[in-house]
Amino acid sequence: MKISFESRATQQQQAAVQNLIEQRGGRIVTEYSEEQRHLGIIAPQEAELLDAALLMPGVAAGQLIKAAARFASTEFKSTPSAVPVGSDAIGGDAFVVMAGPCSVESTEQMRLSAEAVAGAGAKLLRGGAFKPRTSPYDFQGMGEAGLLIMREAADEFGLGVVTEVMAAEDVALVAAYADLVQVGARNMQNFSLLKALGPCGKPILLKRGLSASIQELLMAAEYLVAHGSPGVVLCERGIRTFETATRNTCDISAVPVLAERTHFPVVVDPSHAAGKRSLVPALSKAAVAAGAAGLIIEAHPDPDRSVSDAAQTLSLETFGSLMKVLEPYVRLRDEERAQMGVATLA
Amino acid sequence: MKISFESRATQQQQAAVQNLIEQRGGRIVTEYSEEQRHLGIIAPQEAELLDAALLMPGVAAGQLIKAAARFASTEFKSTPSAVPVGSDAIGGDAFVVMAGPCSVESTEQMRLSAEAVAGAGAKLLRGGAFKPRTSPYDFQGMGEAGLLIMREAADEFGLGVVTEVMAAEDVALVAAYADLVQVGARNMQNFSLLKALGPCGKPILLKRGLSASIQELLMAAEYLVAHGSPGVVLCERGIRTFETATRNTCDISAVPVLAERTHFPVVVDPSHAAGKRSLVPALSKAAVAAGAAGLIIEAHPDPDRSVSDAAQTLSLETFGSLMKVLEPYVRLRDEERAQMGVATLA
Amino acid sequence: MKISFESRATQQQQAAVQNLIEQRGGRIVTEYSEEQRHLGIIAPQEAELLDAALLMPGVAAGQLIKAAARFASTEFKSTPSAVPVGSDAIGGDAFVVMAGPCSVESTEQMRLSAEAVAGAGAKLLRGGAFKPRTSPYDFQGMGEAGLLIMREAADEFGLGVVTEVMAAEDVALVAAYADLVQVGARNMQNFSLLKALGPCGKPILLKRGLSASIQELLMAAEYLVAHGSPGVVLCERGIRTFETATRNTCDISAVPVLAERTHFPVVVDPSHAAGKRSLVPALSKAAVAAGAAGLIIEAHPDPDRSVSDAAQTLSLETFGSLMKVLEPYVRLRDEERAQMGVATLA
Amino acid sequence: MKISFESRATQQQQAAVQNLIEQRGGRIVTEYSEEQRHLGIIAPQEAELLDAALLMPGVAAGQLIKAAARFASTEFKSTPSAVPVGSDAIGGDAFVVMAGPCSVESTEQMRLSAEAVAGAGAKLLRGGAFKPRTSPYDFQGMGEAGLLIMREAADEFGLGVVTEVMAAEDVALVAAYADLVQVGARNMQNFSLLKALGPCGKPILLKRGLSASIQELLMAAEYLVAHGSPGVVLCERGIRTFETATRNTCDISAVPVLAERTHFPVVVDPSHAAGKRSLVPALSKAAVAAGAAGLIIEAHPDPDRSVSDAAQTLSLETFGSLMKVLEPYVRLRDEERAQMGVATLA
Repeated sequence: MKISFESRATQQQQAAVQNLIEQRGGRIVTEYSEEQRHLGIIAPQEAELLDAALLMPGVAAGQLIKAAARFASTEFKSTPSAVPVGSDAIGGDAFVVMAGPCSVESTEQMRLSAEAVAGAGAKLLRGGAFKPRTSPYDFQGMGEAGLLIMREAADEFGLGVVTEVMAAEDVALVAAYADLVQVGARNMQNFSLLKALGPCGKPILLKRGLSASIQELLMAAEYLVAHGSPGVVLCERGIRTFETATRNTCDISAVPVLAERTHFPVVVDPSHAAGKRSLVPALSKAAVAAGAAGLIIEAHPDPDRSVSDAAQTLSLETFGSLMKVLEPYVRLRDEERAQMGVATLA
Repeated sequence: MKISFESRATQQQQAAVQNLIEQRGGRIVTEYSEEQRHLGIIAPQEAELLDAALLMPGVAAGQLIKAAARFASTEFKSTPSAVPVGSDAIGGDAFVVMAGPCSVESTEQMRLSAEAVAGAGAKLLRGGAFKPRTSPYDFQGMGEAGLLIMREAADEFGLGVVTEVMAAEDVALVAAYADLVQVGARNMQNFSLLKALGPCGKPILLKRGLSASIQELLMAAEYLVAHGSPGVVLCERGIRTFETATRNTCDISAVPVLAERTHFPVVVDPSHAAGKRSLVPALSKAAVAAGAAGLIIEAHPDPDRSVSDAAQTLSLETFGSLMKVLEPYVRLRDEERAQMGVATLA
Repeated sequence: MKISFESRATQQQQAAVQNLIEQRGGRIVTEYSEEQRHLGIIAPQEAELLDAALLMPGVAAGQLIKAAARFASTEFKSTPSAVPVGSDAIGGDAFVVMAGPCSVESTEQMRLSAEAVAGAGAKLLRGGAFKPRTSPYDFQGMGEAGLLIMREAADEFGLGVVTEVMAAEDVALVAAYADLVQVGARNMQNFSLLKALGPCGKPILLKRGLSASIQELLMAAEYLVAHGSPGVVLCERGIRTFETATRNTCDISAVPVLAERTHFPVVVDPSHAAGKRSLVPALSKAAVAAGAAGLIIEAHPDPDRSVSDAAQTLSLETFGSLMKVLEPYVRLRDEERAQMGVATLA
Repeated sequence: MKISFESRATQQQQAAVQNLIEQRGGRIVTEYSEEQRHLGIIAPQEAELLDAALLMPGVAAGQLIKAAARFASTEFKSTPSAVPVGSDAIGGDAFVVMAGPCSVESTEQMRLSAEAVAGAGAKLLRGGAFKPRTSPYDFQGMGEAGLLIMREAADEFGLGVVTEVMAAEDVALVAAYADLVQVGARNMQNFSLLKALGPCGKPILLKRGLSASIQELLMAAEYLVAHGSPGVVLCERGIRTFETATRNTCDISAVPVLAERTHFPVVVDPSHAAGKRSLVPALSKAAVAAGAAGLIIEAHPDPDRSVSDAAQTLSLETFGSLMKVLEPYVRLRDEERAQMGVATLA
C-alpha cells in the first residue's frame, strides 16, 4: 500500500503515522519525495491500516496497490525514476552508455578500454571479474584482483564501474568496488542472491533472464526493492527463441512495455542480444529510438583476442565511431525526454 | 550461378550467351543492370556452363552462388534493391509508409482512411479483402467488392494499394487491384501460393511466418524469384515466443541481419508485432533507426469498432501524430541512406 | 448449437426441425448418432432458434456451444470419435500405424516399403507425391505419377494411402488416390486449402503447425468440419522451440490436452518430431503410453539414400523391430481403451 | 582425459600413475570401477600426460575426451550409472518414484503424505522447505523447521528425502537432512551454488532450467562433477515455449537424448511440466515408456489447500491410483532394462 503525506505535514505527524504502521505489524519498504513524501508499505491487514492512516493529520492520500510488482510499479510511482549511479544517474536527463570488455584480463587492457570509452562519452566502465561460464573448465574470472584493476582504470578516467556478482558471499566485496552491481541473466531468479543484494547499498543492474517474461523481470526487481535496494536499472539483453541468426532475440518491445509498467529505467545490451558485432550499431540505434535510458556495450582493445564473447565485441575504435553515429539519435531522445517529468529516487 | 556482361557487350554477344545457357538446359531466372548487365541462371551442370561462358566474348565475370537463397542473396547482388511499387519504390531513397485498416469494411471507412493516411504522408493504403481468421465463423473479408472499394479510395487520394491474397485462384484478381500483393504470415511457406505469385507481374510483400527463421523467410523470397517475381519486400511482423506482454515479439534484429543477407528491402509491421496500440510509436521509431525501408501500420477511422485487430489499431489522428514524431528519425535515416548506393531492380 | 432428438423421434419430426433451422437461416454443419441423433447447427440467432426447437416434438435436448472449436469440441460430442479411413478406423479400438518413405521415389521403393510395413502390421502407407521443400531448387515430388505408384503398392499389400496435398487445385486429384488426405504443418493455417478440403469426401490428417498452439490446431480442424469434412485426425509432429538437440520438440502433452478438448483422435509423428532416427523408438513408446490413437513413421528401403529426411528415417528392418517393441505397449493401451466408449463418426 | 587400469594393476602401479598426474599439475576429478578402475582427469597438458601414462605398467588404456561435458558424458563412461540415494539407487534396476507436497506446511501434512506415498510404492518423500517464489511477498518456505518435519515423516515410513537448496550458505544444512539435494530450474546455471554443492557429499537432483538446452543441462551436471559430486540425477520438468495450454512443455525427447549423451539417470517431473493435475497420468506413463529412471510427482493430502502449485498437485488417493496404473508400464520397462548393463557409480 501507499501513503502520501501533505506537503506541509510536520515531522511529528509523519512520526505518528510511522508508529501506527509499526504497531499494526507493517513496515516501510521504500519511499520517495516529489513535493510530497510518499511511503511504500507492507502490512498484514492493509485495508484496515489504510483506513486508519487516512484519518490521521498530515496524510493526504493513500491506496492499496494491485500490481504484483508493488513498489517497482507505475501504480506506486507514475513518474520515471532516475537511479543515482556514482556521480551520474540512469533514467534522468542524460543518456548513459556503459562499455568495456566482457572479462577483466589485465591492467593494460582495462586502462586502454577505460581511456577509449571515456573519451568516446561513456559514463561507466563494464568488465567481469566473476564470470558465469557454461563450462567449469573455462576461465572463471580474475576475482578481486580484477575488481581492483577495473576500479583503478575507471577512476583514472573518471568513469563509474559496473560489474557482475554471482554469489551472495561476494556481495560486500563487489559492492565495495562497483557503482552499479550487475545481476546476470542466469541469476535473475536466484532469489537468495537478490535478497542478499537488497541491503548492499548500491544500485543494481538487473539483466533479464534468457526466458524470463517481462513480468518476471519486474518481480525480480521487486525482490530487490522489498529487501532494501536503493534503485534498480533493468536491462533487456535478448531472450531465447527459435531464431539462430542471432545469439538471442533482442526484445525491443520490452523497452516501451516496461515504461508502462515500472518507474525504473531500462537499458539495452545490444552485444549479448545480437551475439555478432556487425549488428550492434543497428540495435543500439533502435534502443535509443525505442526509449531506452542507456546502453551497455562490449568493447575491447583487441576483440579477437578477448577471452570471452569475442564475436560480439567491438574494437575501441568502432565503439568510438558508434558513439558518433548515436549522437543525433540521442539528441532526438533528449528533446523528447525534456517534455517529460523525471524524479530522482529517494 | 551469375554471369556479368562487359558494359560494352553487344546484343549479339549477349544473345550468344543466352543461346549457350539454353543449349545446356539452363534458364535465366532473374537479371539486373548496374552499368553492366548481370544474369541469374539455374542450370543442371553449372560449373561446366560457367567455364564455357567465361570464354565467350562480352562476358566480364561469373561465379557459382553458394547462398541457398541464390538470387535473393547479397552474394548475387551486393547493392540494396529498390522495388518499384506503383509510382513509388520501396528500398530506394524514400522511406515508405503503408497504412490503413485491418479489414475493408465500407466505402466510407476506406475513403476516410485513405484521405487521412495520404494527408499524413503514407504512400500506400493497406486493407484486407480476404482475411485469414483463426475461426471459420469469423468475418472472412469482403472479397472483390472490398478490392474495388480500396482501389477507388486509394486512387482518389493518390495512394498505391497493398492487400493480401490467400489462394492461388485469387492471384490474378488481387494482382489486378493491388500495387503490392501481400503474402500473410500463415502462408509464408504455402509454396503453392508462392509459385502462383511469381509470374503475377506485381511485387510481393512477404510477411515473415510466426515461427519462421530469417533464413526460411529468405528461402520463401527465393521461391518468388525462382518463379518470376519482379521484386520482393520482406516484412518483419513479430515472431512467436514465450513472452505474452506483446502479441508477438518484434525481432528488430531481423532488419540488420536481412540487410547483410539480401538485397531486397525490409519493412516492419509494428502493429502486428506489438498487438497493442500504445507500443506502436516506440516500435516504429526503433524500426526506422534499425534501418527498415518502411512501415506498415494499422489505422482506422474508429479503431474500437474495427471488425478485426482493434487492440493494435491506431486512430487516424494518432497515425497523423505518429508520422510527425517519425519525421526527424526518417530525416536521420535519409542522411545515412544518401551515403549508400541503391540500384532499382530490373 | 446442438440439438439432440429423442431416440424414437420420427422422420417427420426430424424433418420439421430441419425445416425450422432452414427457415431461420441456419444450417446443419455436422451430425452424429449414438442411440440418439445429434445435430451441430450454425444459425444467425442461435438462442432464439434453440428456444423454438426445444418446444418441438421429437427434440430431447439442445444447447448453445461455448467452445470456439464448436463441433470439434468435447462440448459438442463428449465421446471419442473413430474416424473411418479406408477399411480401417483411426480412434477406434485398434491402434493404427502409418508408415513409409518421406517421398515417393520409384515403384520399386514403394513396393518394398509397402510389403515391409504391411508385414510389420502397419495399416496405411505414407509417402509424399507433392513435397513442401524449403528451397525452390529441391526435389518437389513426383506429382500424380507418385500418387499412382503409391496407390498400386498399397493395394497390392492391403494398405490404405495417406499423402499430402499442398494446393486447393490438387484436392480432387489427391482425394481420388488417398484414403486419408494430409495437410502439412506449413499449411495448417492455409485456410483456403482447408476450405477446399472440407467437401472432398475423404478424412483429413491435420498436422500441427510448427508454432501453432493446440487451440489453433483445433480451430483448423473446425475449419474442416465447418466446410463439410467427414472426419479429422489430428497429428502432433513436434513444435519449434529453442532446443536444437532435436529437429522439433515433441509436445507429448498435446495428446492428453487434445483428448480433453476434442472428440477427434490424435496421432503422433515421432520421425518429424525427433529428426533423428535413434530417438524414434522412445518417442513412439511414449506416444502410445500418452494415449495416442496411432503413429505415422518414416521408413525407407535404404534410408541413407532417401531424397528427403534421411536422418530421421528408419530402415524397413528397424521399423519391423520397432513394431515388435511396441506390441506390449499397444496391448496395455488396448486394455485401457476397452474400458472407454468410442463412437464411430456419422 | 580418461585412464583405465588393467584389472590386475597393483596398488603400487596405480599410485605411481596418480603421482605422475599430480606432478604434471593434473587432478583426478572422478572415477568408477567396472572390473577395471577408470580415472577421469583434468590436466594442463593432457596429450603429453596421456602419452606418458600409457607407457606405465598397469595402465590398460586412455583417451582424451572431446565431449564438453567430459565426465558426465557417455564418452567417459558408456554404461548407465546407478546413483545411490539413501538406501536406494536411481538409474539402477528399480524405477524410483519421489512424491509429496510442493511445500512443507505442517507435521500432519507431511506425515499423511509420507504414509500414503510410501504405501503406494514411492521411495523418496519430496517437499520444499526453501521455496523459490516469483513474488517476494509469497510464502518462502519453513526453512530448517520444514527440513526437520520432512526428515521425521520420511524416517517413520522408510522413505528418503529430496528437497531443494537455494543458497550456497544453506548447502550444509540441507545436505544434513536430505538424501538427494535438489537444484531448482531457476538455479540450474547458478554456478556458485553448483560449486558449493559439488563437495557436499550428497547426490544432486538437477532440474533443467526453463529455457536451458539439453547440452546446458549436461554442462551444469559437469560443474557438479568437476567440483566433487558423487552423483547427479537429471530432471526434465518442462521447458518454456509459446504453448499456453500447459504450464511448460514436457520435452519428452530429452529422456532418450540424454541417454545417448550421459551415463547419469534422468527422471521426469510431470507435475511441473503439465501444471495441471489431469495431465499428470498421461505424462507419467509417457515418461516410463520413454526410458526415464523415475518420476517426481506432487501429491498433497488436500491439494486445493496447498500453499503452492495447487493446480498441478494430485490428491494422495489419486497418486495411489496412478501408481497402480503405472505398474504394467514399469514392468515393461524392467524387462527392457534387464537386458542392459548398469554400473553403480563409485
